[in-house]
Amino acid sequence: MKATGKFITFEGIDGAGKSTHIAYVAERLRQALSLQSVEVISSREPGGTPLGETLREVLLQQKMHLETEALLMFAVRREHIAQVIQPALERGDWVISDRFTDASFAYQGGGRHLSLDKLNALEQWVHPDLQPDLTLLFDVPLAVARARLDATRELDKFEQEKADFFADTRNEYLRRAAEFSQRFRIIDSTQSIAAIRDELDGIIDALLLSASESQQINEVKTSNA
Amino acid sequence: MKATGKFITFEGIDGAGKSTHIAYVAERLRQALSLQSVEVISSREPGGTPLGETLREVLLQQKMHLETEALLMFAVRREHIAQVIQPALERGDWVISDRFTDASFAYQGGGRHLSLDKLNALEQWVHPDLQPDLTLLFDVPLAVARARLDATRELDKFEQEKADFFADTRNEYLRRAAEFSQRFRIIDSTQSIAAIRDELDGIIDALLLSASESQQINEVKTSNA
Repeated sequence: MKATGKFITFEGIDGAGKSTHIAYVAERLRQALSLQSVEVISSREPGGTPLGETLREVLLQQKMHLETEALLMFAVRREHIAQVIQPALERGDWVISDRFTDASFAYQGGGRHLSLDKLNALEQWVHPDLQPDLTLLFDVPLAVARARLDATRELDKFEQEKADFFADTRNEYLRRAAEFSQRFRIIDSTQSIAAIRDELDGIIDALLLSASESQQINEVKTSNA
Repeated sequence: MKATGKFITFEGIDGAGKSTHIAYVAERLRQALSLQSVEVISSREPGGTPLGETLREVLLQQKMHLETEALLMFAVRREHIAQVIQPALERGDWVISDRFTDASFAYQGGGRHLSLDKLNALEQWVHPDLQPDLTLLFDVPLAVARARLDATRELDKFEQEKADFFADTRNEYLRRAAEFSQRFRIIDSTQSIAAIRDELDGIIDALLLSASESQQINEVKTSNA
């Protein structure tokens, strides 16, 4: 019997370097879980479904009212949960997502000052019973994030925002990491890639161990029933 | 001084014949209000803005989770209010919209059985302080609506729904018309176009009279201040 899957999210301001590490974590998990026939689904927000990818373009390129943006982000999320996340977790597969609801709090709440009450209301509306099992927050000083962004690619609507926006976004991420410290791990993303991988290995091994222990407990319960 | 504008919405199931009458009401209002330099803006939902029109295509053509659909409808609405409705009303112009929030209650609530609590929560989130001054509900038996639809055009995702869906949608419209009887007027849309125009003339004249009376009261207040 497969246990319920785990849901891991990756967060951080643009240029924090999380993309580099998502593929690594996905591959590490695939190797560790393949013996149990557990799949690892790598997804992202905004996006994750055909509808979500269509709306991602709209969200990243078009200007709109702040509350419209929040509603669209959560519409994409609702579809992502319905089509991808929930079915995978119920099958016992794992999902890793490049951004989830913490990003709405950080960007629309911290960066753009939408009230946290309004964001809490949307979160409760869209996923009252779902939270990530683990959230990896890749954190860097703004100057480092900026330099990385400028060096790499054309900037979308969010990436073109001013320094204040990113400072407020980063602060909201850190505030949430403190509030939900049980599921958050803050990764100092100024470290070398090798040092970050070491840290990620430790975090992943701990999660795999806890998943396998809770599965064994479930199996004992089932065989005693 | 121009008074605050009025907001009129048109509702009814597909095939109820409301489109025929929107242009008539718009033209009647334009004639009546032109002397006061009041504009009459004719809009629609889903749509009403460039972003809304893009999302209209997605909403009418693509299948999605019921809650995703509701969130998208309200995202379109938030943008419509921010870009079109609110600025027009503040300028003293009038807005007539082919569908508004009553349609979300009728279609997603009545037709598709999304809980009215969830719809109320979204309405409160998106427009806690805005309601139409007048809602014209064009009502016909299902068989009439069906026959009209089949005769006229290619059907979108909603129009292809089964009879039960339209029965539940119509019932929710009628329930809301009873609940909010002050702003709702039910038009029996099986009548001839001429008879409906007579009825609309009476409703519009009453609204114009009440608007002009409240403007005169405001002017007296202002001149006494």
